[in-house]
Amino acid sequence: MTNNLMTTNDSSIPNFDAGVSSGVSDDRLLPAIAQDATSGRVLMLAWMNREAWEETRQTGRAVYFSRSRGKLWRKGETSGHQQIVRQMQVDCDADTILLHVEQTGAACHEGYASCFFRDVRSDGEIEIRETRLVDPADVYR
Amino acid sequence: MTNNLMTTNDSSIPNFDAGVSSGVSDDRLLPAIAQDATSGRVLMLAWMNREAWEETRQTGRAVYFSRSRGKLWRKGETSGHQQIVRQMQVDCDADTILLHVEQTGAACHEGYASCFFRDVRSDGEIEIRETRLVDPADVYR
Repeated sequence: MTNNLMTTNDSSIPNFDAGVSSGVSDDRLLPAIAQDATSGRVLMLAWMNREAWEETRQTGRAVYFSRSRGKLWRKGETSGHQQIVRQMQVDCDADTILLHVEQTGAACHEGYASCFFRDVRSDGEIEIRETRLVDPADVYR
Repeated sequence: MTNNLMTTNDSSIPNFDAGVSSGVSDDRLLPAIAQDATSGRVLMLAWMNREAWEETRQTGRAVYFSRSRGKLWRKGETSGHQQIVRQMQVDCDADTILLHVEQTGAACHEGYASCFFRDVRSDGEIEIRETRLVDPADVYR
């Protein structure tokens, strides 16, 4: 294992110019995966614009851009289920972000630990193999 | 843990209507995360149209839609670094796909085990903490 310090504050990493349209402004959005830093479970995928990325980097709390609401979404601001960011990574093309997080409560607004609570079997049938951690009605009211 | 069989062949799961434009046809694309089925490491994020999804489901090999080439991309067709799919999941909104795969060789075209080989530190500096598994020049020629 080598430890190479590559560059400092390269503004093209992440490369938001390669992102998809936010639909509400000139902002481009990149997909951001949140993975549980301890278990390795993939919790969710959301989107970031440059402002969300910078706030996440500077505060150590995951901030996304809500495509449905068209604005910054500080994860946990309503539910309390925030994400403390332990590691931030970008992929080879610098157009996808991976956050390793400590998740408080349930990552998913449906009350599951992860948004990926549904399996699709090879025959196309859909299966849920886990129970909710919390009742969404107790969280979003 | 409960085991609930929810539905059969619901054509709205995944919900490709919620995807982003492919740029080359009417196809909509959803992000698809590939995670190592054994280690849990996130290997890459790519995109799928419905055709890629169906071929993946039916063959058990990961097939994506290459946005740069504008066509189906059977992972490993050039490099030999294919992905055998062990589990397919969709998220709560059915607009992101998660594949649990057995990866042959290196997931990343740059020769790293994962496309996420770069850390971004809180001060914005970028760090590479691992070495290539393979030399890309030996794989893509």
